[in-house]
Amino acid sequence: MGRALLTDLYELNMAASYLRRGMTQPATFSLFVRHLPRGWGFLVACGLSRCLEFLESFRFEDEDLRYLAETQGYPDETLQAFRDLTFGGEVRAVPEGRLVFPDEPLLEVTASMPQAQLVETFLLNQITYQTAVASKAARCRIAAADRDLIDFSFRRVHGTEAALAVARATAIAGFAATSNVEAARTLGLAAAGTMAHSYIEAFESEIEAFRAFAEDFPNRVVLLVDTYDTARGVEKAIEVARELSARGSRLLGLRLDSGDIGKLAHEARRTLDDAGLQDVRILVSGSLDEHAIAGLADAPIDSYGVGTRVGVSADAPYLDSVYKLVEFAGRPVAKLSTAKATLPGPKQVWRRSEMEGDVIALSDEDGPPGAEPLLVPVMANGKRVVDDGIDDARDRLTRDLRALPADLRSLEPGPYPVERSEALEKLSEEVRTSIRDRELG
Amino acid sequence: MGRALLTDLYELNMAASYLRRGMTQPATFSLFVRHLPRGWGFLVACGLSRCLEFLESFRFEDEDLRYLAETQGYPDETLQAFRDLTFGGEVRAVPEGRLVFPDEPLLEVTASMPQAQLVETFLLNQITYQTAVASKAARCRIAAADRDLIDFSFRRVHGTEAALAVARATAIAGFAATSNVEAARTLGLAAAGTMAHSYIEAFESEIEAFRAFAEDFPNRVVLLVDTYDTARGVEKAIEVARELSARGSRLLGLRLDSGDIGKLAHEARRTLDDAGLQDVRILVSGSLDEHAIAGLADAPIDSYGVGTRVGVSADAPYLDSVYKLVEFAGRPVAKLSTAKATLPGPKQVWRRSEMEGDVIALSDEDGPPGAEPLLVPVMANGKRVVDDGIDDARDRLTRDLRALPADLRSLEPGPYPVERSEALEKLSEEVRTSIRDRELG
Repeated sequence: MGRALLTDLYELNMAASYLRRGMTQPATFSLFVRHLPRGWGFLVACGLSRCLEFLESFRFEDEDLRYLAETQGYPDETLQAFRDLTFGGEVRAVPEGRLVFPDEPLLEVTASMPQAQLVETFLLNQITYQTAVASKAARCRIAAADRDLIDFSFRRVHGTEAALAVARATAIAGFAATSNVEAARTLGLAAAGTMAHSYIEAFESEIEAFRAFAEDFPNRVVLLVDTYDTARGVEKAIEVARELSARGSRLLGLRLDSGDIGKLAHEARRTLDDAGLQDVRILVSGSLDEHAIAGLADAPIDSYGVGTRVGVSADAPYLDSVYKLVEFAGRPVAKLSTAKATLPGPKQVWRRSEMEGDVIALSDEDGPPGAEPLLVPVMANGKRVVDDGIDDARDRLTRDLRALPADLRSLEPGPYPVERSEALEKLSEEVRTSIRDRELG
Repeated sequence: MGRALLTDLYELNMAASYLRRGMTQPATFSLFVRHLPRGWGFLVACGLSRCLEFLESFRFEDEDLRYLAETQGYPDETLQAFRDLTFGGEVRAVPEGRLVFPDEPLLEVTASMPQAQLVETFLLNQITYQTAVASKAARCRIAAADRDLIDFSFRRVHGTEAALAVARATAIAGFAATSNVEAARTLGLAAAGTMAHSYIEAFESEIEAFRAFAEDFPNRVVLLVDTYDTARGVEKAIEVARELSARGSRLLGLRLDSGDIGKLAHEARRTLDDAGLQDVRILVSGSLDEHAIAGLADAPIDSYGVGTRVGVSADAPYLDSVYKLVEFAGRPVAKLSTAKATLPGPKQVWRRSEMEGDVIALSDEDGPPGAEPLLVPVMANGKRVVDDGIDDARDRLTRDLRALPADLRSLEPGPYPVERSEALEKLSEEVRTSIRDRELG
């Protein structure tokens, strides 16, 4: 898990140089997102858990050191220093499931400079995509109101590790189940799934397939009705519902996966109701995202199977995330480059009550009256000091979404007010002036 | 690796039903992409290698069976059948690195129905994103002409597994190196990297950072010059180049990571040339993709560090990929649904010489005179019958890109001609008629 070579080469170069020069004083790096994706009103912090696991187990294996010796020519003393290196630092972070906004640190790492530098790549890698997917899933959660959501994304996300993370992020966003069996097993989630079109096609006829499934899984019969013709499929499902009923069982639901989903759901609902099957649920799937779900708000749908577009966060498959040095050896640090300038110093984010706005401040400042600090200690001396899981993160997100102003819950949100404290602005100006004097004078 | 629970629950339901009913006759599934992403002219087949590894080691572990018994209530005979199940089928596939087009099978699996069904999710998961990334990387390769490309994507792709796959896909597309050290080690690629802005900031001044790096890595000095002011950064790098030269070493390159890259590259080139440093290379990075690279064609750039936008295939983070049953127990199979209809029967794709066009045909047909079959046997009786690596795939892609008509190499390509054979059209019509008579009559 904590393989030290899961990093960019430049991190190793820099760490080697710092170690050789004795530049092992404490450094603080701040991980934040510079801009929201277009049309998004908030982000949902996600990915911290795996980062903490990585930091706790961070180490160079013998084969890693052999590889570096052979290919990178680091001197023996550097390799020895790498061999002895573990992560013994502090991490303060916004707990998973909480809402965050641009420029607000999702986490801050304070550790000996080489340690803090070496873990950059892994932390960005995990936080970036997990936060994107959790945010996208939360947008679906809002659009779906009180209807169920199920994660169907495994087949088209970027690998099996991503599939597991997506199952976790969607569970945090309040999805009821995942199709991913390994994720369900590992994370203790509900697994869900019915049948594919291939199952229908493997039988001589659609109704034979329905009957076989009803016989084999009498307690969870959900039938896919759109393989050949949806209206006929619904009629055949009703026939099977009658047969099930005669045997003391029942049809739980129908799944619609193609065509004009809203129209087909209305028709299927009417046909079911006319047959006295008011309790048969309608599950829909196929290219769903928050916008498609919102567009189906008037359709009689009970459950949405949401896949690819949320699993890869299709409209924002990456966030503009960075991991920036803000303090080294007690000296506040910043970058001047156009459009990519950074704010110096370790920080705290204060949230005013009822989410009236946030204030980004220096970490040693007091917050505004009644405001709540978002960054909390999660690791000390390289060991986790929190132990929370998916349920905690889901509860936090539920609370934050409830507090979120209505305008920011919409699919075309306005901006959320994020200020900077006076002390932060003052320090930023001082650091910029000092850089200008030194480098540009 | 071949964990059987890396699948969607419905695959297990269907396999359980097939096993219980003795529906274990051979089935053929075809994996293909229905449409190209907007603006793309081709796809690059990628991901097969990992699929074959998975199939060779496919099995249910005891803990998997315990989990299924506890949560899914499968009967003992099903669990026993799962325990005995391995993948013993055949796979025909388009080798990695070859160009493919919509509706052309990237692979076809023929195996006992439960086996062929269970592996759907994993095969789609791997082929979809790896093919997307390899295609995006090949578009960069074309745009960059004879300049070097380096994979810098690790920090923002969807996990560490994805980062490894991206390093591999970009190597197949002809990238010269990757920043991902673990990928370089595992895949035998060149690792590349210099320093981050944080390194510059950790020193009292920019020139001190440059001097430290030059002293610590005298044989690979590439300096990042845009932390404070690019023009000054270039001047300081030249100062360090003189110092290196006096010690018998030299400055290899500069890296530009922000601002108007084209303009800054011209200015840096002029300053370097004026200083007699014609052999110092210019590497650029920051939000690059094929369009940005094409826009920099006139700038004096030697090397592009390409990251996020290629690593997540930002404009097409997923492909419209499917795995469809095309034959079961000797009977050709198809789906009728609007806009998602499929073509029945196992297939071959024939490519006319000089890439004049492809023909999708039934697998037992002869191809057009002089045409080459794209699908080749890669697995028989569950064992790999090919053994090729990144170099082979890269060579295939190089040859295919050379043969590709100029119009399809452009960033706004026209369509490539893909026909269907008469026999395939005839079979499709027969199957459709028979479904209509049976299901809709």
